[in-house]
Amino acid sequence: MSNPAVVSLDEIREAASRIDVVDAVRRSFIAYSNGKSVVPPVGELLFDGPPGDVHIKYGYILNDDIYLVKIASGFPENGRLGLPASDGLMLVFDRRTGELRTILLDRGYLTNLRTAAAGAVVASVLAPRVVRRIGILGTGVQGRMQLELLRGRVDCTDVLAWSRTEAGALRYRREMNGLGFKIETTTDPDEIASTCNLIVAATPSCKPLILAGSIQKGTHITAVGSDTPEKHEIDPEILRRAEIVVADSLEQSRERGEIHRAERDGGFDRKRVVELGHVLQDATLRRTGDDQITVADLTGVAVQDIVIAKAVSAALTNQAGTSPQGTGKD
Amino acid sequence: MSNPAVVSLDEIREAASRIDVVDAVRRSFIAYSNGKSVVPPVGELLFDGPPGDVHIKYGYILNDDIYLVKIASGFPENGRLGLPASDGLMLVFDRRTGELRTILLDRGYLTNLRTAAAGAVVASVLAPRVVRRIGILGTGVQGRMQLELLRGRVDCTDVLAWSRTEAGALRYRREMNGLGFKIETTTDPDEIASTCNLIVAATPSCKPLILAGSIQKGTHITAVGSDTPEKHEIDPEILRRAEIVVADSLEQSRERGEIHRAERDGGFDRKRVVELGHVLQDATLRRTGDDQITVADLTGVAVQDIVIAKAVSAALTNQAGTSPQGTGKD
Repeated sequence: MSNPAVVSLDEIREAASRIDVVDAVRRSFIAYSNGKSVVPPVGELLFDGPPGDVHIKYGYILNDDIYLVKIASGFPENGRLGLPASDGLMLVFDRRTGELRTILLDRGYLTNLRTAAAGAVVASVLAPRVVRRIGILGTGVQGRMQLELLRGRVDCTDVLAWSRTEAGALRYRREMNGLGFKIETTTDPDEIASTCNLIVAATPSCKPLILAGSIQKGTHITAVGSDTPEKHEIDPEILRRAEIVVADSLEQSRERGEIHRAERDGGFDRKRVVELGHVLQDATLRRTGDDQITVADLTGVAVQDIVIAKAVSAALTNQAGTSPQGTGKD
Repeated sequence: MSNPAVVSLDEIREAASRIDVVDAVRRSFIAYSNGKSVVPPVGELLFDGPPGDVHIKYGYILNDDIYLVKIASGFPENGRLGLPASDGLMLVFDRRTGELRTILLDRGYLTNLRTAAAGAVVASVLAPRVVRRIGILGTGVQGRMQLELLRGRVDCTDVLAWSRTEAGALRYRREMNGLGFKIETTTDPDEIASTCNLIVAATPSCKPLILAGSIQKGTHITAVGSDTPEKHEIDPEILRRAEIVVADSLEQSRERGEIHRAERDGGFDRKRVVELGHVLQDATLRRTGDDQITVADLTGVAVQDIVIAKAVSAALTNQAGTSPQGTGKD
């Protein structure tokens, strides 16, 4: 009966910097699409006054040696108290005994990281052959991390970022300074659509920011902002026109995200949607011409959490084995 | 963004010894029966090779300042590795912000404690006026804790405990020595039925150990062992004959426990079942004669976990405020 390691956000960031999160997340999508994971429906608690929602995700990958329980919360009025609106932690258990091995007090960081890693996984198989300019919609945490993980993975350093406000744009340019990108900003989303051919949409918008009439031939769009039935960032017409439409989870795309909205409001035929884990394994499901429009709709799957929590835990253990100071515990 | 307190089993035991767990659990049943709690369906993960099951319970009491997530596991082959078969922890969150306040690494202790406290709550309203002998079926952790929490709450010190084996009976007498009870043991369950009038059944039996033909008039039986659709410890005929049949949760009694089994196999009419939280508030729902047989079927409700976790957390905080050594953190 050993006590679990309790790992702080700083230690988690450091460990995550030593692992290939994009590859871990790539493998998680393959496991998921191949039916090699067990991910029950998400548990939920809802609160009023102040409003808040809590999601409990849990599951495991078959034949793996761990299972994961993740608890994530969103309390939108936390800013009044000087606290972040979202928070979370992950618990890594031994699959053979039920023992709790590691408590990752990641405050939601690993969820952001695995979401950004999914964007990089998508870009690796769906980005245009020649990326002229990267467009980032949204200058929040996800807008920042998506671009960080595209660095070195996409052969383009020209970036246009859209923010709703000048202040957000300014902050983004400052935060992203020194990463090797040439970053310009705009408050007009149409400028993203009309000048970028690899676009990542990372906003909580409930109305389309990328319009069908504005996008260029050959553009790829990854939408990561919509994780509810109501949110969407892309004109449904773009999904109708796109040659390839990919979902991280076909099942989840029935209930939330761009595909759900395009089907509900725009007459989009979901039969054309392919799952990311299959696209990763089958090159014939990818782009076959430079003029094709492609869309990936990411709503977030618990397998991503499972693999990233496991990879971070393993990195902490390795560190503990080689460094006299670092035990991964506090 | 303060880090949560991480509390060890030893600290939890100490804090629990300073609080009135029986009163906390009593209040939890009242809140539950009055519709003042939110307890979604239990999340579950099942494993094979080695077999194991994991339950994730979560919820909150309306207008309370916390919500709870509890993760409990049972891995029956753990004994081979020198580990207990069951394990668990509780996470106490701030209901206004979602912040994790306290990690209670209780290894399942608080679940055992709240189950034993429920037995004491039941005895306070359903025990016979004159208890001649307390009968305890099962000499495991629950058989021990049930009796510990009856101490001082029932005016009787004569105890007969049933164990399947002589070794179990011997161990029980040794463990319970010094608590002020006069403890005798038996390996014949019928001796419990025929000589005790306050009986607690705390075994994982799948066939009845207490038979209708053997029990005395005026006996009360609390059954805590059955938490699945298959387990039951009491002859269904006893439920048919009983004047009063109480469930901790009417809803759960449809799917598991003694009432479920008596209804399924024994033609028991569940319309007569009353919920414990109502019995606690309404004396007219209790025993009206010394010859009446009463039964309480406890399958375990998440509100019990919520109140006990909160009470323990509060006791730790109080200690932190008064003692320079004890911060409730490790």
